[in-house]
Amino acid sequence: MWRDRRVLDLFGIKHPILLAPMAGPVLSEMAIAVAKEGGLGSLPSAMLSPEQTRTEMEKFRAAVKAPVNLNFFCHTPPAQDEKREAAWRARLAPYYDELDIDPAAPIPVSSRTPFDENLCQMVEQLRPEVVSFHFGLPPEVLVARVKASGAKVISSATTIREAIWLEERGCDAIIAQGSEAGGHRGIFLSKHTDRQVGTMALVPQMVDAVKVPVIAAGGIADGRGIVAALALGASAVQIGTAYLFCPEAKVNAPHRAALKAAWDDDTVLTRVFTGRPARGIANRIVSEIGAMSDLPPEFPLAGGTIMPLRGKAEPAGSGDFTPLWSGQAMRLGREMPATELTRTLVEETQARLRQMTPG
Amino acid sequence: MWRDRRVLDLFGIKHPILLAPMAGPVLSEMAIAVAKEGGLGSLPSAMLSPEQTRTEMEKFRAAVKAPVNLNFFCHTPPAQDEKREAAWRARLAPYYDELDIDPAAPIPVSSRTPFDENLCQMVEQLRPEVVSFHFGLPPEVLVARVKASGAKVISSATTIREAIWLEERGCDAIIAQGSEAGGHRGIFLSKHTDRQVGTMALVPQMVDAVKVPVIAAGGIADGRGIVAALALGASAVQIGTAYLFCPEAKVNAPHRAALKAAWDDDTVLTRVFTGRPARGIANRIVSEIGAMSDLPPEFPLAGGTIMPLRGKAEPAGSGDFTPLWSGQAMRLGREMPATELTRTLVEETQARLRQMTPG
Repeated sequence: MWRDRRVLDLFGIKHPILLAPMAGPVLSEMAIAVAKEGGLGSLPSAMLSPEQTRTEMEKFRAAVKAPVNLNFFCHTPPAQDEKREAAWRARLAPYYDELDIDPAAPIPVSSRTPFDENLCQMVEQLRPEVVSFHFGLPPEVLVARVKASGAKVISSATTIREAIWLEERGCDAIIAQGSEAGGHRGIFLSKHTDRQVGTMALVPQMVDAVKVPVIAAGGIADGRGIVAALALGASAVQIGTAYLFCPEAKVNAPHRAALKAAWDDDTVLTRVFTGRPARGIANRIVSEIGAMSDLPPEFPLAGGTIMPLRGKAEPAGSGDFTPLWSGQAMRLGREMPATELTRTLVEETQARLRQMTPG
Repeated sequence: MWRDRRVLDLFGIKHPILLAPMAGPVLSEMAIAVAKEGGLGSLPSAMLSPEQTRTEMEKFRAAVKAPVNLNFFCHTPPAQDEKREAAWRARLAPYYDELDIDPAAPIPVSSRTPFDENLCQMVEQLRPEVVSFHFGLPPEVLVARVKASGAKVISSATTIREAIWLEERGCDAIIAQGSEAGGHRGIFLSKHTDRQVGTMALVPQMVDAVKVPVIAAGGIADGRGIVAALALGASAVQIGTAYLFCPEAKVNAPHRAALKAAWDDDTVLTRVFTGRPARGIANRIVSEIGAMSDLPPEFPLAGGTIMPLRGKAEPAGSGDFTPLWSGQAMRLGREMPATELTRTLVEETQARLRQMTPG
């Protein structure tokens, strides 16, 4: 059925479709749905406690006999910077005032657990078939232990130089994260967020530059995009935004409404919500702070001070302070269960391949 | 040979490949080469006098019996702003000093002729089969006259909303200019240059939004990219950067050297060289002024003050002040004559289509 079997054989999956491990929207329910249809189910751990991750893994294992991709962030947590934190709070103070939130109330700390000794032990116990990292790779010794556990290791590259770096450090496959992709950029070598490369240019140059298989991500949301990615030389695709339209996605109401209403050029890379550049639909806070302002503290600290604003605004139906993560192809999104979407993607791809056969 | 014949029949060409009308690098020699192989040869007029354009058209008509695309800019020329001009000269003064250029010497005026009554008369006389515009469309009355002359009218859209706007105003086909593309962005409705959409996301959403055929541009440089564009629903492709590697391209030595050495993430959108955002390889002046600085005067005035710097630096082998226009897929570039490149693109595309046929 599929001509390029490199990623299929590497992971032991039936179809070359990976669910993007979207921290927040994706829990086991969605991963199970994709895995049941022969794609690779992914479980993002970055916003879960180790206990929650274990629970999600147990649910997955109980529901389906299929490989799973456990995803981790591997950033270096920043030192607290009181001065910067104070400046950020001062900048957001008028919003606290507007929403009638007590500025003296304790502000939650935004944390994303980076991959470390503890999580490595968890991987060694849970034995996911695939471990994916975002923001590069953890220390060499931990990568070696993950591989020794039997897991295939993958990570995202936003440039060719990042792909070469990942291959040299042992990645079994590399996700080419084109600039169209929603959520956090995997960028880890370059400092130039304004030079990120589109999927159409990124994938073939990456395929030429590395020996391991390339998984295309960014702007792919239907069978047309999947065939395009395969044409460019990708061995599989990773799909995020299209799955946000599924009922299984844990997406709050303002976010869901924004996804349905957005135009292709409504998204922007912003560091407002977490301190790292991520693509989302521009909203009030992004416009007023400035998408790439250096005022928000370093990742992931920026988010803490925003949480009380979200807590007040979202129940009132406002997405003014919500990270409205989205890729640029949101207008291709379709509301259907994740099993049905996965099946539809496979069928569309096969149909498109037949349509394109030279006459 | 080609399943989708919409653009082929519209223009009367054999293969769905348009030479991008790159003002500067492309003259009749390159257009003739592409047309001889069955693609659409394009002649960019924006940097030529009407007399030069006539000469290039005559050369084309004498060399090949094939349709030709005559390209025009359709910006509104800005008023001279002495204060802004003075600030720009002051900012560049240290470079004049460094290169030992007399700051009191007259500075050339950078002009790009916008489409107007005179050029419309020229079109009515020269009767190109296709007229393409960049930066939207000229006034309605001029578009009507161009169409009445028998020419098919096309223009570039960088967003879905721009595509709908162009279709409503009578475009016969629309170029989907993905963010990967080199040179000037066609952007004309949006003010947000940081929200430009990648080809992978732009093309299928545009195909869904308009009835006229879509021509994909941006990041396409070999048969893989052409098949990908067709898979996304494009009826043809427009290729620019790949043709800059041909000997027929009028590309200065520092630019040529930069194209060969560049990495995928070395380009940036900058308004430094002309006042409008355009994609090129970042060099000294871009880095030092700031790619999207608002210091450079409005398009096309910014370029005048830079010309003396180029005049001194380029002969000495330096590209420090040269617009190094390039798309993001420059690493796919191959040095071969434009006829051979066009033939190769067609062959690669056919071969790739056969490879992708479901087993």
